[in-house]
Amino acid sequence: MKKMINSVESLLEESLNGFATAHRDIVRLNHQPNFVTRADSSKAKVKLISGGGSGHEPLHTGLVGMGMLDAACPGQIFTSPGPDQMLVAAQAVDAGKGILFIVKNYAGDVMNFEIAAEMLDIPTETILVADDVSLPADHSTGRRGVAGTLIVEKIVGAAAEAGANLQACKQLGERVAQSTASMGVALSSCTVPAIGKPTFDIGSNEIEMGVGIHGERGREPMDLVSASEIVEKLASHIDAELKPAAGQRVLLHVNGFGATPLMELYLVFDLAAQYWQEKGVIIERSLVGNFTTSLDMAGCSITLTLLDDEMIQYWDAPVHTAALRWGC
Amino acid sequence: MKKMINSVESLLEESLNGFATAHRDIVRLNHQPNFVTRADSSKAKVKLISGGGSGHEPLHTGLVGMGMLDAACPGQIFTSPGPDQMLVAAQAVDAGKGILFIVKNYAGDVMNFEIAAEMLDIPTETILVADDVSLPADHSTGRRGVAGTLIVEKIVGAAAEAGANLQACKQLGERVAQSTASMGVALSSCTVPAIGKPTFDIGSNEIEMGVGIHGERGREPMDLVSASEIVEKLASHIDAELKPAAGQRVLLHVNGFGATPLMELYLVFDLAAQYWQEKGVIIERSLVGNFTTSLDMAGCSITLTLLDDEMIQYWDAPVHTAALRWGC
Repeated sequence: MKKMINSVESLLEESLNGFATAHRDIVRLNHQPNFVTRADSSKAKVKLISGGGSGHEPLHTGLVGMGMLDAACPGQIFTSPGPDQMLVAAQAVDAGKGILFIVKNYAGDVMNFEIAAEMLDIPTETILVADDVSLPADHSTGRRGVAGTLIVEKIVGAAAEAGANLQACKQLGERVAQSTASMGVALSSCTVPAIGKPTFDIGSNEIEMGVGIHGERGREPMDLVSASEIVEKLASHIDAELKPAAGQRVLLHVNGFGATPLMELYLVFDLAAQYWQEKGVIIERSLVGNFTTSLDMAGCSITLTLLDDEMIQYWDAPVHTAALRWGC
Repeated sequence: MKKMINSVESLLEESLNGFATAHRDIVRLNHQPNFVTRADSSKAKVKLISGGGSGHEPLHTGLVGMGMLDAACPGQIFTSPGPDQMLVAAQAVDAGKGILFIVKNYAGDVMNFEIAAEMLDIPTETILVADDVSLPADHSTGRRGVAGTLIVEKIVGAAAEAGANLQACKQLGERVAQSTASMGVALSSCTVPAIGKPTFDIGSNEIEMGVGIHGERGREPMDLVSASEIVEKLASHIDAELKPAAGQRVLLHVNGFGATPLMELYLVFDLAAQYWQEKGVIIERSLVGNFTTSLDMAGCSITLTLLDDEMIQYWDAPVHTAALRWGC
């Protein structure tokens, strides 16, 4: 295993310290328990908190800031954060308008956010994101939450910033989550530092369609095919789920898993945009880059969100985080 | 070779098309010859043009926009763009205030920008960036231009936007270039699609100190050591070059080469910040992320720029590009 680290044990702390130093105009870092808050968290508004295992950076710490998350709770790599992190983070940022947890659908995350919500003496609601359509909708543990989470966080973050109340934020977030579908493909495995070897084996001419963001095996391993064929496959699953009509406005997000050059991500974006444009769908907004990563995995995911006027307005609203910044 | 592409021949065009579609609010793409300009290039100002081989994205196309570059000329992967690209791009964006070429010090780039300057019937100046201190200052072809180029482009871009004339832009850019030093380390090689195999061999427990952004062999291959030792080595070379005094304000930029997780880049930033803070140097501004990449190479570079009030003002000035965006 080749990593620029000092030790597996200190990696998360040292990385968080660097993050907090680099972005001290935007965030504050709390230790024991670990969580990141906005540098200025005094505003009386619904507070959005997300979190999950580390290794997906910039998700979620890089999305803390004006117009998006109020706090993020990073667990160890690919490991759920504990309820104590969410509890103390919620108490730290609460401003009397309630707490909204945004949770990717993984058993550990769901359970720990649930425990924190029960322990909190503050009105708390939860949005569960389960956008990975590589699994069937009736999968035993539900679908995984992947790159669509960022879309939910951005749109609901803007609504909360604009003064929407807890119920309105929750309803909007659920609407965005239900309007969003994602699917990914891996060309290589990631390597978790504490394990020291690739999470899964993959042949030198093989790709993993429908891979999860922790290297969960996907829908099917298959031979490496052209980018056009890969995109056609990913897009057709997403399209079958969301069924955008001609004239529908969408947000198209191509997310890199960490080790894939931007040139390839833009090429995938080009092909995916063409796929839906040929159906008369309107690519109203777009986002291309490494946002929901899987350490050093090569590959990418495609995410589509069906947009309406309200979502577009909130997507365009000012945001000031380490990873997303515009309008301010 | 595992890449999400359709063909080696069509990769650049398809990628540029995706880039232009995703960022159609910021850029326009010209074909035959290939160059990217700002969507709105009507302002009467000194026009900044950069370019070079592709494979370093977001550099330079992702840095075209308000407050930074007016045009970028992408060559094929790791191949200099032709003088025709720079010539037509300059003619397209010229607004009567002169053209400033910002050129990374590689023989092909230098020669082709020189030919374009000679052919242009417009006042043209050139800033050469040669910030890679892994090579001695008296190296036969000079030092390579690497991640410090972005710093020059940002600061001079803001000056040009504010109305500085051609000579003032050139002088400022040369001052930034001389105040900037970089050095990189590779944990893996990149793979150029047209070649189909890694550019260099590297042992499973080996790193390449002082690597170039095209996978040029560095100062020395050595055994993989701790992140602290890697950073100490990179930082000490940079420090010996720039000799920042206690109290000196600096911009610290940790740049990923493409395949290294953000967690590791922030960890490297943390260690590098400590290195200079212990000497009393003030980390006034910072930038962490994948900006000057080498396709799918794992590793990173550290760049330090000695700042003064003018540079800080221009660094902070609004910028609106695909890869850097703030203040607007």
